[in-house]
Amino acid sequence: MADKLPDIKTQFSEWYQEVINQAELIDQAPVRGCMVMRPYGYAIWENIQKNLDARIKAQGYQNCAFPLLIPESFLQQEKSHVEGFAPEVAVVTHAGGSELEEKLVIRPTSETIIHHMFSRWIHSWRDLPMKVNQWCSVIRWEMRPRPFLRTTEFWWHECHAAHATRQEAHADLTAAHYNIYKNFIEHDLAIPVITGAKSVNEQFAGADLTLTHEGVMQDGKALQMATSHMISQSFAKAFAMQFQDDAGTMQYPWLSSFGATTRLIGAMIMVHGDQKGLVLPPSIAPYHIVITPIVKTTNKDKVLAYAESIKARLEKTFRVHIDTTSSTPGAKFYHWEVRGVPIRLEVGERDVDGNVCVCVERIDSSKTVVSTIEQSSSPEQEDPLQLFFAEKLESIRHKMFSKASAMQASWLTRSADVAEFGPRIEQHGGVIQTGWCGGNECEKALKQYKATIRCLSEDKSCTSCCVCKKPSITDCIIAKSY
Amino acid sequence: MADKLPDIKTQFSEWYQEVINQAELIDQAPVRGCMVMRPYGYAIWENIQKNLDARIKAQGYQNCAFPLLIPESFLQQEKSHVEGFAPEVAVVTHAGGSELEEKLVIRPTSETIIHHMFSRWIHSWRDLPMKVNQWCSVIRWEMRPRPFLRTTEFWWHECHAAHATRQEAHADLTAAHYNIYKNFIEHDLAIPVITGAKSVNEQFAGADLTLTHEGVMQDGKALQMATSHMISQSFAKAFAMQFQDDAGTMQYPWLSSFGATTRLIGAMIMVHGDQKGLVLPPSIAPYHIVITPIVKTTNKDKVLAYAESIKARLEKTFRVHIDTTSSTPGAKFYHWEVRGVPIRLEVGERDVDGNVCVCVERIDSSKTVVSTIEQSSSPEQEDPLQLFFAEKLESIRHKMFSKASAMQASWLTRSADVAEFGPRIEQHGGVIQTGWCGGNECEKALKQYKATIRCLSEDKSCTSCCVCKKPSITDCIIAKSY
Repeated sequence: MADKLPDIKTQFSEWYQEVINQAELIDQAPVRGCMVMRPYGYAIWENIQKNLDARIKAQGYQNCAFPLLIPESFLQQEKSHVEGFAPEVAVVTHAGGSELEEKLVIRPTSETIIHHMFSRWIHSWRDLPMKVNQWCSVIRWEMRPRPFLRTTEFWWHECHAAHATRQEAHADLTAAHYNIYKNFIEHDLAIPVITGAKSVNEQFAGADLTLTHEGVMQDGKALQMATSHMISQSFAKAFAMQFQDDAGTMQYPWLSSFGATTRLIGAMIMVHGDQKGLVLPPSIAPYHIVITPIVKTTNKDKVLAYAESIKARLEKTFRVHIDTTSSTPGAKFYHWEVRGVPIRLEVGERDVDGNVCVCVERIDSSKTVVSTIEQSSSPEQEDPLQLFFAEKLESIRHKMFSKASAMQASWLTRSADVAEFGPRIEQHGGVIQTGWCGGNECEKALKQYKATIRCLSEDKSCTSCCVCKKPSITDCIIAKSY
Repeated sequence: MADKLPDIKTQFSEWYQEVINQAELIDQAPVRGCMVMRPYGYAIWENIQKNLDARIKAQGYQNCAFPLLIPESFLQQEKSHVEGFAPEVAVVTHAGGSELEEKLVIRPTSETIIHHMFSRWIHSWRDLPMKVNQWCSVIRWEMRPRPFLRTTEFWWHECHAAHATRQEAHADLTAAHYNIYKNFIEHDLAIPVITGAKSVNEQFAGADLTLTHEGVMQDGKALQMATSHMISQSFAKAFAMQFQDDAGTMQYPWLSSFGATTRLIGAMIMVHGDQKGLVLPPSIAPYHIVITPIVKTTNKDKVLAYAESIKARLEKTFRVHIDTTSSTPGAKFYHWEVRGVPIRLEVGERDVDGNVCVCVERIDSSKTVVSTIEQSSSPEQEDPLQLFFAEKLESIRHKMFSKASAMQASWLTRSADVAEFGPRIEQHGGVIQTGWCGGNECEKALKQYKATIRCLSEDKSCTSCCVCKKPSITDCIIAKSY
């Protein structure tokens, strides 16, 4: 059995590292800042991919694959983009045994290569909107790596679109931001988010509007979970991308992009985890249910056969695993608790004889004794055992969202004065709603508390800027962040 | 409407390029030899992934993600591996704004990095077998690029395993070769294959046994479709990977790997395509059925509503698309024919009135008039329209496999003398079964005809080597190849 986890309240950062190790989610790669996703970690990512991919396709985005390698000159086409990404890229100078005429960069994001291809494919208004998505890994050289949160190589999806008008681009982007991301994060990950636009300083390099969903972690820091960008026409001009509108005039299309990465896994760990380890939301848990048979030599066959019969009834609908290892019951419980499996089903000889099993919920350790008696029902009727677990998993999702909402609310306060909340969030964490004059200097003043404007708030309740006390033009959300 | 395709009989290579263009499968990337997979091409790859992935998991392999970047020194750990791959790799020398202390290569394949990780994870016989898979792209610098067949970046899956004994490793590898690959290629791609071991010269760099499935293309050339390698213990020794067996002795595990790439799409094009374009096997076609409504202004709503009602009945089971563009019927037919959709469903006003639709099969243009009358059946009974198309698609798969088998047989001959078959296959193509003494010089002699030993044959019917006339130790299969 592995060692106890560090204290989640006082050693949050150590707890985070150690829970990732013990749950065998990832391992360090030999290249600094890169990670290996191990089977259990990758199975979580596969479920995230599957659920997000369905939502992305439902919004009319088609999957493609664009090249890993981008000519260095492409990055330089758009001024603010190159300033944002050039310091972070990995550069290929040699290939096939000789030095390259033009250096190539490994994609840090794919705007430049995709916009180059768009300019080959878009000719007429009939070609619009053009909406593509790709699942891949990207490289951004990372000085302060942290598992899932900041890694040199990370995995993500990136959606890119070209529309005929800014209005259409904006409508599609907003729909994606809510229907794809907010829905996925709040429903599938059971994480409540604070949603709004980024300040100009925090926008994506090359965009003129960036929308974000910010999650609140258990240590009172914010984490950016998914962002959506209005790229507008700057890249279209840089890549000479034009279309003939229905009146015959040449126009530049309006571009947008949005993406979400493997850091979603980090968020999920930091929002839901507890002293015993991970707590995984059912939608993305590799196993919904793990059956732990409690056996002696004399009853092993009988108990395992019973476990198999329960698995057979459930596995059409749920991801079910039987722990057939020779570990002690305590070791099995620990193993699956640290891995955050939503439901543990205990079965021992007495359960077999009584036609029951014991359902233990990871979220709150609550136990329910469940009858396994099969009712002589017609084949169309659903098995009551299946119905029980479908309801149970849905109730677990609700409990998780409620618990995370209460945690979020406990960190969220209003304050009018940075002198009051600045030192507080620097030392203890916290997420502050306050007023802002919109000025650069006041935004920069937050740095002394290691805080930033996470997003602007649609809510308008503060009258003066928390720094300079001039009239506020917008409420904003301030916190330290990952 | 696009231009007619080049003649498939006399201009096979030009036909191949042009059918890929017209079907919009891929486009050229700005970096020479790299490709962009467009939505229709990528949808084919997604179906290949989905079907292969299920087979890979069924054999106990777990998906992971390993890093893109590998320290250059790793490649040099295993002598034959570095000799095989060093000339093809792309090298990262700078990252994060400065020169790297150690150069990194972009993975050309992942044996070295995965074996490094295995050596961290494998300690005891209890950790074995360890079986992992990854879906990713790799880079091998390509001097003579060709869409899907030879591209600098290509997409693939790679499975890697460590077993306690050679016997177990070999049994798992053989099972994978047949249950995963042969089954997938012959069933899902409807391509018959010739199966056997590679000659030592053609083995994977670092392996001591390579199994291959070779497909025969319509121009009489062979194409290697998937390979499986016994890596044995060489890499385990290079990466100091040892485990304690159940008697307490330290042992090196036995390693194996197997992979299949986006060239499967190239094979499918060259085996099944015809003068009208692609012909896609149902299992991997992006759409099983495309409904082409034939409308006039006066009946548009009526015909489209009918098309929608058919789609609604079929789309739970099949991938169905309605072509609602304003193109002429002829242009629609051409559009979907070149894209190889297995079934086109024509519906016009007379079909609505007669409660029928016309099913046209891409494989042989055969037409069937199908009743769409709904029978008042209980909900459990399957819709007869669904049953009709399920049977039709299965029969299309059989027709495709039979046609491909006949094509393969037409190229396959036996010959005892390279002087007879060498000039013949050099000029016209062809696949020859013949005898081989096992000698290097005789294998090299095939080069003058641009041919190679594609695999050794389990069949033993030839008594003398086709080059030196000494006794044959094994039959072999000889052809030009892609």
